[in-house]
Amino acid sequence: MIAVETVSIKNLYRHVGEEVTLQGWLYNLRSSGKIFFLIIRDGSGIVQGVLVKKETSTETWEKAKQLTQESSLRVRGVVREEPRSPGGFEIQLTDLEIIGIAEPYPISLKEHGVDFLAERRHLWIRTPRQSAILRIRAGIEHASRVFFHERDFILADAPIITPAACEGTTTLFEIDYHGEKAFLSQSGQLYNEANAMALGRMYCFGPTFRAEKSKTRRHLMEFWMLEAEAAFFDFEDNMRLQEDLVYHIVSHVLQHHRADLDILKRDIGRLEAIKLPFPRISYTDAVELLNSKGIEFKWGDDFGAPDETAISDHFDSPVFVHHFPVGIKAFYFKPDPDNPEVVLGADLLAPEGYGEIIGGGQRLDDLKLLEQRIEEHGLPQEAFEWYVDLRRYGTVPHSGFGLGIERTVSWLCGIEHIRETIPFPRTLYRIYP
Amino acid sequence: MIAVETVSIKNLYRHVGEEVTLQGWLYNLRSSGKIFFLIIRDGSGIVQGVLVKKETSTETWEKAKQLTQESSLRVRGVVREEPRSPGGFEIQLTDLEIIGIAEPYPISLKEHGVDFLAERRHLWIRTPRQSAILRIRAGIEHASRVFFHERDFILADAPIITPAACEGTTTLFEIDYHGEKAFLSQSGQLYNEANAMALGRMYCFGPTFRAEKSKTRRHLMEFWMLEAEAAFFDFEDNMRLQEDLVYHIVSHVLQHHRADLDILKRDIGRLEAIKLPFPRISYTDAVELLNSKGIEFKWGDDFGAPDETAISDHFDSPVFVHHFPVGIKAFYFKPDPDNPEVVLGADLLAPEGYGEIIGGGQRLDDLKLLEQRIEEHGLPQEAFEWYVDLRRYGTVPHSGFGLGIERTVSWLCGIEHIRETIPFPRTLYRIYP
Repeated sequence: MIAVETVSIKNLYRHVGEEVTLQGWLYNLRSSGKIFFLIIRDGSGIVQGVLVKKETSTETWEKAKQLTQESSLRVRGVVREEPRSPGGFEIQLTDLEIIGIAEPYPISLKEHGVDFLAERRHLWIRTPRQSAILRIRAGIEHASRVFFHERDFILADAPIITPAACEGTTTLFEIDYHGEKAFLSQSGQLYNEANAMALGRMYCFGPTFRAEKSKTRRHLMEFWMLEAEAAFFDFEDNMRLQEDLVYHIVSHVLQHHRADLDILKRDIGRLEAIKLPFPRISYTDAVELLNSKGIEFKWGDDFGAPDETAISDHFDSPVFVHHFPVGIKAFYFKPDPDNPEVVLGADLLAPEGYGEIIGGGQRLDDLKLLEQRIEEHGLPQEAFEWYVDLRRYGTVPHSGFGLGIERTVSWLCGIEHIRETIPFPRTLYRIYP
Repeated sequence: MIAVETVSIKNLYRHVGEEVTLQGWLYNLRSSGKIFFLIIRDGSGIVQGVLVKKETSTETWEKAKQLTQESSLRVRGVVREEPRSPGGFEIQLTDLEIIGIAEPYPISLKEHGVDFLAERRHLWIRTPRQSAILRIRAGIEHASRVFFHERDFILADAPIITPAACEGTTTLFEIDYHGEKAFLSQSGQLYNEANAMALGRMYCFGPTFRAEKSKTRRHLMEFWMLEAEAAFFDFEDNMRLQEDLVYHIVSHVLQHHRADLDILKRDIGRLEAIKLPFPRISYTDAVELLNSKGIEFKWGDDFGAPDETAISDHFDSPVFVHHFPVGIKAFYFKPDPDNPEVVLGADLLAPEGYGEIIGGGQRLDDLKLLEQRIEEHGLPQEAFEWYVDLRRYGTVPHSGFGLGIERTVSWLCGIEHIRETIPFPRTLYRIYP
C-alpha cells in the first residue's frame, strides 16, 4: 500500500541520509535550467526537493517540466540536513511520479484580496500560512483535552439544539424542530452544571453559535468553546485551573509547533514570557487603571475591546479581571459574600490586545437566590425548572468557565483576523464554501 | 481549598489503610439501628461508607439520620478493601459534614417509566447506570482522539452551518442565516476532503443532525460523528485504519472501564472475543447469505436493521460489508475499477445486532466522473463547485469514513436504546431539558 511506505515531511528528521518516498503537492517550482527546486507540501510541513538535470533521467526531467502549482506527486530521494531550507531539511531527488496535473491554480504566490481568498477557502487552506494556523489550532485542541483527561475531568457533550436561551434570544439562530421552536446553543454551561452534579468534574468541547449582526475581527457566527465545570470547585480553584490550562496550551504550542510559528513569523518571545501564576486585577481596580490612563470609563459598564487592550497592555501574561458588578454578568453568577454588589466571576484577557479568551466564575448554589435572579432577569421560570432542580437536590459549591478556541488560536498565532483560525469560518455575509 | 485535599472514589485503591476525605452525594442509605451504610457517589464511582454508632459522636450520628437521597456531603474515614462492596472498597467513616440536604428526590431506587425519566434527564444521569454509560462514552471519545493523534491525523473541525446538502434536503434542519437559507450539517465529509488536501490526514469530531420523522431505538436527531479523511489512502488502507480504530476503542474500554461495565452487567466475553483483522464479506455474498437463511432480499436493495443483524450474527467481531451497488451509495463513492456496478465503499456492522457503526470508502478522484455523478444525482452544480475544485487542482486517491459515537456507545455498553448514550438526547418529540 502507498501510505505505508511513505514518510511525512514533519518526520524527515528521523531519516537523514536515507532514501525516502514522499507524497504531496507542489507548492512552488524554480529552475536554474540545470536544477529544479521543488517546494513540496504534504499537510504536515513543507520541504525543498532538488532535482539535478545531469544526475537524473531525461524522463524524470521532462516530468518535472510539466508540473504546475498544486499538482500532486510522489517523489523519491535522499534526506539531507540543510539549515537554509524551510524546515531545515532538503531532499536530493532521484525519482518523480506525477499523480495529477493541476489546472492553472487560482491562488498564486502573490497577494490576493480577502474576498477572493474567502471565496476559495477550500484552496486557501493549502497555503503554508493557513495550514500552519490549522495545525496550531489542532495542537491547542489536543493539548486541552490531554489537560482535562489527566485531571480526571470527564468529557460530556452538551446539546446543540436547545429549547431555552442562556442569555436572551436576540442573538440566537432559531430552528424549526418538528414544529417546535428551538435554538442553536450559545453555551453548554447550564447543561454542564447538570453534568457536573452527575460526573463531578466535566468538560465539553463543541460548536456554539451567535447570530450577531456585527462584523468585527474578533467574532464568528459559529465558534468552538471549551467549557469546564466542577462540583466542589470554588472561585479560586477555578482560576487556578484556568491558568494551568492556558499555560499548558502555550507550552504545548511552543514545544510542538515551532516550525508552524516560524512560518507565521510569530514573535515567540512574547509567548515565552508568560509565567504562572497569572496576574489578577479586580474590576474596580481595572476601572481605576483605565481612568488613570485618561480613558473615560464608568464603574458598572462593561469593557469594550479597546478597554481590554488597555488593561492587558500592563501585563506580560494573560490577566484575570475579577469581581465584576452584578449588573453586567449573567443571572447564574454567585455574588461575593463579602460584597454582594459584585460577583465571583472573572474574565481572562490575553496579552497583545487579543481580548477576552475565558469567561468564568462560581455559580449560584442557593435555591432561593437563584429563583429570585431568574425572576429579576425576566427569564421564563418554566424553561429553567430543570436548572433550578440542581439546587433542590444536593446543591454544592461549583464553578466553571468557557475558553474560546478561535480567540486563543488568534492570539497564539499572532494573527489579525479570527476568520483564519477555523477551516471554514461562518461570517455575517458568508457561509460558502 | 476543598478540592485539593479530597480524593476521588475511582482513586481509593491508592489509599488503602489511609484516612481520606471524600465529597459527593448520597445515593442510598440503609441502617441496622447501630450501623449506617451510606452509598456515596462522586461522579467517578460509588463506594459504601460504614458509620458505626458506638464508634462515632452523637452529633455525627444525628447528622447521618437527616440525610436524604442525593443530599450532598463531605465524609472522612479510613479506606478498606472489601471485595463484597461495589467497587471493591469501603470507608470506615469517622466524620460527616452535610453540604446540602436534598428535597424528596423524584427518582427513587424503584423502576420508573421512560417518559418520567426523560423529563428528568438532568437528574437521571446521576444514577450509577447512566453515569457509567457517560463515562464509557467519554472513554470512547478519548481513545479515538489518542488513536488519531498517534497516527499524525490533524483535527480539523467541520462547519455545522452549511449552505448545501450532502445527501438531499428532506432530512435537514433548516435555519435562517441572516436572511439566507442554510442547513445543519449531516456530515463533515465534503469539508473533510478539502481539509485532507490541505493537511494530508485529518479527522473531525462534532455534532451532526438528521431531521428524521422516525422513532427507532437506533436514531437521534442530534448525534456525534467521528470522521476521518486521508489523502493517498485507498480502500484497503481505509478499512485497516477503521479496524485498528475500533479495536483500539474496544481495548481501551475493556482496560479502563471495567467497573463501569460491571455496573452495566455487560457480557465482557463478547467484547474480549473481538480479534483483528475483522472479517469481510462483499455485499453480493451478504445477499446470498441472507437468501440462504430464507430472508428475502434483492441485489440492489439497501439493508434494513434486521438484515444487518442477520449478517453480523455470523461473526464474533465487527464485520465489513463491502462493494455496495452504485445505486444505493452517495455520489462521491469511487466505482470499483474491476466492476463499475459496485463502489469501493464498506460499512462496518457491530456484533450482537447493534448495526452499522461506520460507513466509509474511497472517494471519486476523477474530475469528469464526479461532474457526471453530480448531474445524475440531480444535485446543484453550483453548490458543489468548490468540492469539484478538489479534483481540478492536484487530485489524489483518498478515502475516509464516519463512525457514529452513540451507536458505538450502545454496542459497547450493551444497552437497548440509543437515548441513554448521550447526556441530553434530542429525540423526535423531546428537546427538554
